[in-house]
Amino acid sequence: MSKNENEFVKEITNIEDDIAQWFTDIVIKAELCDYTEAKGFIAYKPYGFEIWENIRNYLDAHFKENGVKNVYFPMMIPESLLEKEKDHVEGFAPEVATVETAGGKQLDEKYVVRPTSETIISTMYSKWLHSWRELPFLYNQWCSVVRWEKETRPILRSREFLWQEGHTIHATEAEAREFTLKMLEVYNNCYKDLLAIPTILGKKTEKEKFAGAEETYTIETMMHDGKALQSATSHYFGQNFSKPFDIKFQNKEEKEEYAYQTSWGMSIRSLGAIIMAHGDNRGLKLPPRVAPIQVVIVPIAQKKEGVLDKANELFEGLKKDYRVKLDDRDNYSTGYKFSDWEMRGVPLRLEIGPKDIENNQCVLVRRDTAEKIIVSLDEVNAKIAETLDAIHENMYKECEARLADRTTVAHTLEEFEQQINTKQGFIKAMFCGENECEDKIKELTAAKSRCIPFDEEHIDDKCVVCGKPAKHMVVWGRQY
Amino acid sequence: MSKNENEFVKEITNIEDDIAQWFTDIVIKAELCDYTEAKGFIAYKPYGFEIWENIRNYLDAHFKENGVKNVYFPMMIPESLLEKEKDHVEGFAPEVATVETAGGKQLDEKYVVRPTSETIISTMYSKWLHSWRELPFLYNQWCSVVRWEKETRPILRSREFLWQEGHTIHATEAEAREFTLKMLEVYNNCYKDLLAIPTILGKKTEKEKFAGAEETYTIETMMHDGKALQSATSHYFGQNFSKPFDIKFQNKEEKEEYAYQTSWGMSIRSLGAIIMAHGDNRGLKLPPRVAPIQVVIVPIAQKKEGVLDKANELFEGLKKDYRVKLDDRDNYSTGYKFSDWEMRGVPLRLEIGPKDIENNQCVLVRRDTAEKIIVSLDEVNAKIAETLDAIHENMYKECEARLADRTTVAHTLEEFEQQINTKQGFIKAMFCGENECEDKIKELTAAKSRCIPFDEEHIDDKCVVCGKPAKHMVVWGRQY
Repeated sequence: MSKNENEFVKEITNIEDDIAQWFTDIVIKAELCDYTEAKGFIAYKPYGFEIWENIRNYLDAHFKENGVKNVYFPMMIPESLLEKEKDHVEGFAPEVATVETAGGKQLDEKYVVRPTSETIISTMYSKWLHSWRELPFLYNQWCSVVRWEKETRPILRSREFLWQEGHTIHATEAEAREFTLKMLEVYNNCYKDLLAIPTILGKKTEKEKFAGAEETYTIETMMHDGKALQSATSHYFGQNFSKPFDIKFQNKEEKEEYAYQTSWGMSIRSLGAIIMAHGDNRGLKLPPRVAPIQVVIVPIAQKKEGVLDKANELFEGLKKDYRVKLDDRDNYSTGYKFSDWEMRGVPLRLEIGPKDIENNQCVLVRRDTAEKIIVSLDEVNAKIAETLDAIHENMYKECEARLADRTTVAHTLEEFEQQINTKQGFIKAMFCGENECEDKIKELTAAKSRCIPFDEEHIDDKCVVCGKPAKHMVVWGRQY
Repeated sequence: MSKNENEFVKEITNIEDDIAQWFTDIVIKAELCDYTEAKGFIAYKPYGFEIWENIRNYLDAHFKENGVKNVYFPMMIPESLLEKEKDHVEGFAPEVATVETAGGKQLDEKYVVRPTSETIISTMYSKWLHSWRELPFLYNQWCSVVRWEKETRPILRSREFLWQEGHTIHATEAEAREFTLKMLEVYNNCYKDLLAIPTILGKKTEKEKFAGAEETYTIETMMHDGKALQSATSHYFGQNFSKPFDIKFQNKEEKEEYAYQTSWGMSIRSLGAIIMAHGDNRGLKLPPRVAPIQVVIVPIAQKKEGVLDKANELFEGLKKDYRVKLDDRDNYSTGYKFSDWEMRGVPLRLEIGPKDIENNQCVLVRRDTAEKIIVSLDEVNAKIAETLDAIHENMYKECEARLADRTTVAHTLEEFEQQINTKQGFIKAMFCGENECEDKIKELTAAKSRCIPFDEEHIDDKCVVCGKPAKHMVVWGRQY
C-alpha cells in the first residue's frame, strides 16, 4: 500500500473549486467508469454498472406492472428510414454514426447506428398492426444508442449511452396521452423513491421538444451547483410517425385509422444525476435503495481474537436483508477503510470492535450526517432498516431545500440575468411562446427553458422578454 | 375471425418436407421474431424476447454466484485495436461493420462495431491491473454484437445477435483454466436444467477454435434433423492477449507477470436451439422452465354461467406459482385456442368447463404427449408442479434418445460418408490432428469436427482419413 492510497479522499477536487473536476474525480476514484481508447466512449466498471442495474430492475418491474413487454429491434437502421419524418431527421442526422462498409463490401444502402429507434420500430408496427383488437402495443427495449456529440463528458454526455426506450401505439388519442403521462409518473417515482432526488415535472416548450413529437414531457432535476439535468422524457407523437410510416388499423367502426403513438426513455445519465445531486467533498453519496453496498462492516482491531468471527456472524445475519459487504482486508488501516467507503458513498458503516463485542453492541455511522449510533446487537437488523430509510429521507430533503433555495421568480429580464448569475439556479418567469424570446434568454444568460411545469403559477401577464401577453410560466435554468 | 385463422396449424410446413421453412414458419407464426428492413437483422417480439429474458436471468444469477460482476464496454472499437492480436483480426476482420463517418465528419480513425470485445476489454484490463491482490477480474457484459454474415437466418445466424460475453483475468494458469471450465459447466447446466436439451461437452480442434484462443471448449447440441448447433463456448487464452495488450501485474514474488485470460459466451441462438431441438409438426414446444406461459387456462363453454368466474379463480390461485395465462377471448373458438396455444408451445393447457365445475375438477393437457389428466381442483396446484417437471424430463429424454440413435461410430471414411448420408447425425471417429484431414472430411461430407469430447473413447489407433496415428476421438457432424 502506498501512502497516496491512504490519503486519497484529499485527492478529490473541492466541489466549490471545480465541480467538473470534482465530478471526474468521483467517477474515476469511486471506480464507476473510466475513459477508453474510443474517444467519447466510456467503460462502466462493476460498481457503476451495479447502480444502473438497480435502476433498471426498478424501472423494468414498474413497466411490466403497467403491461409493458420487452422486445429488441436492430441497432442498424437503413438511412432512408431516418428520413421519413422530417423533424426527426433534422434533429438526429447531424450526430449519427454511419456504416457504409461491412463484411468487406461497400453497402448498397448506408446504415446509421440507432440514435433512437422510432423509425425502425414504426416500420415494424406498420407491418404488425391490423385491427383495434391487437392494440395497444406496449413495448420497451433496453439497449444502447449512439449520438456523436462534439463535446462529451463521462456518464452525462457520452457518444454511446445505455437506456431504455419504450414505444407504444394506441387506438385513441386519449389513451396514448394517458400512457405518456403514466410513464412519466414511473420515472418520477423512480427519482423520488429510489434515487432520493426531487423533481420538476412539466412539458417542454416547442423549441425544446423531441424531434418529431407533438408534446414532450420531462423530469427536470437540480444538481449540486444549481444547474439542471433533463432526467427522463416521455413523448406524445399523435400521428406524426404513424402517418409517414403507415401504422394504421381497422377501428371498431371498421374504418381505417392511424394509430396514436408514444415513446419514453430514461438513461444511465441518471447515474450522473445521483453523483451531481448528492455528492460532496468526501466523494460519492449513494441513496440507500440504489447503492450496490448498503452497509459496509468494518471490524475494529480485527486481529484481536473474536472480532472477525463476530463481524462474519453479523455479515451472515444481515446479508439476507441488505446488500452488505465485510471489509476484512488486512493490508489497509481502519482509517483508510473509513475514508475509502465514504468516498465510495456507502450509506451506512457498521463498526464492530472488541469493546463493542463486550457490550453486545455495534456502531452505525451515517454517510449523510456522520452521525454515530450505538445499537444493541439484538436490534441491529431493524435499526439498519430504519436508518437507511432515514438517510433516504434526509438526502431527499437536502435536495429539496436546495431546489427551493435556488429557485427564484423573475419579473424582468434584468432580474432574470441578475438571479441566474448570483444564484445559478432555476428561474420562474412568464413566456409568450415564441422561439425568439427563448433564443434571447439563451444568448443573454446561457439558460434554456426547462419546462412548463404542471403546477404552473401566474406570476405576470406578460412575457419576461418581449412584454407581449404571456402564455405560460416557464422554469428556466442552465443545464448539463 | 377468418377461416384461415382457425386452421393455421396446418399452415406450418411439415418438418419432414422442409425443415428450414418449418423453422421460419414457427418463428413468424408463434410471434417470436420478424424480418426487418435492415437486411439480415431481425426484431424480437415479446414472446420470443421473454424466452431470452428467462435464459438471461438464469445465467446472470449463476454467473453472480460464481463471483462475476456485470460491466459495460463501448460498442465502437478503434480499428487499430482489432489488429493487435493476429489470429483475432484474421478471424473477425472479414465480417465487421465499419464506421468511417460520424457526427457529419470523416473520422480520423475508423471504428468497427464490436464483433466481440476481447480487444477493447484487454486495453482496459491493461490500464486497471497493477497487483496480484486485485485479481481475478471476473466481468461480464450483456450486449449485442455485429457480424456481417453473407448468409443469414433468423435467430440462428443474424447480423446482430444478443449475447453475454464474460472476460476474466487471473494470476495463474491453473485458476484461469479452472474458471474456463466452470463457466462451461454453467452453460451445460442451463441447457440441461432449463432448456431440457442434452449436450456434448468437449474441446474444439485447432482448426475450429476461437480466433486467438489457446483452447476453446464447447457445448454441442443436436437438432431435430440430426445437425449440430454450437450452443455456447468458453475460451482459455493463456497470455495470447495479455502479451500484445500488455496486461501485467506484480505477482506475490513482486515480479511482473502477464495475466491469464478467459472469455465465454452464450447467445440468443439458444432460442434457436429450443425451437430446433424440441419443435414438432404442431409448432413450437417450449421447455416448461423457460416458457413465458407455462399454463394456459382455456375455459370451455365460457358463456355458461360460472365458467369464467371459476377460470378467473383458478388463474388467481395459480399466478403466484406459475407463469399462467387465461385465454378468455370471446372472438375465437375453443378449438382455435387449443391449436393456437399448441402452436405457440405452451407446455400445459388447463381446461375448465361446466361439467368439470360440477365435479370439482379440471383437465390438464400436456403439449409434449397430448396426455389428458383429470385433476381435482383441490390438488391442481401441486399436480401442475409435478406435471411440468415430468414434461421437462420427457422432453429431455426424447432429445437424448435422438442423440443416442443418431450417433454412430465410423472406422473408415467410407463408413463415415455412408452414415452421415443415411443418418445425418453425429459420427465418432478417430483423428490425427491435422487440418488437412478435417478439410477432407468437410469436402467429402459437409461435416465438421464438433469437438474432442471429454468422455473420449478409444475406437481405433488410426485417423479415419489418413490412417496415421490418431491423437483423439472426435465427434463430427453437419452444423447450423
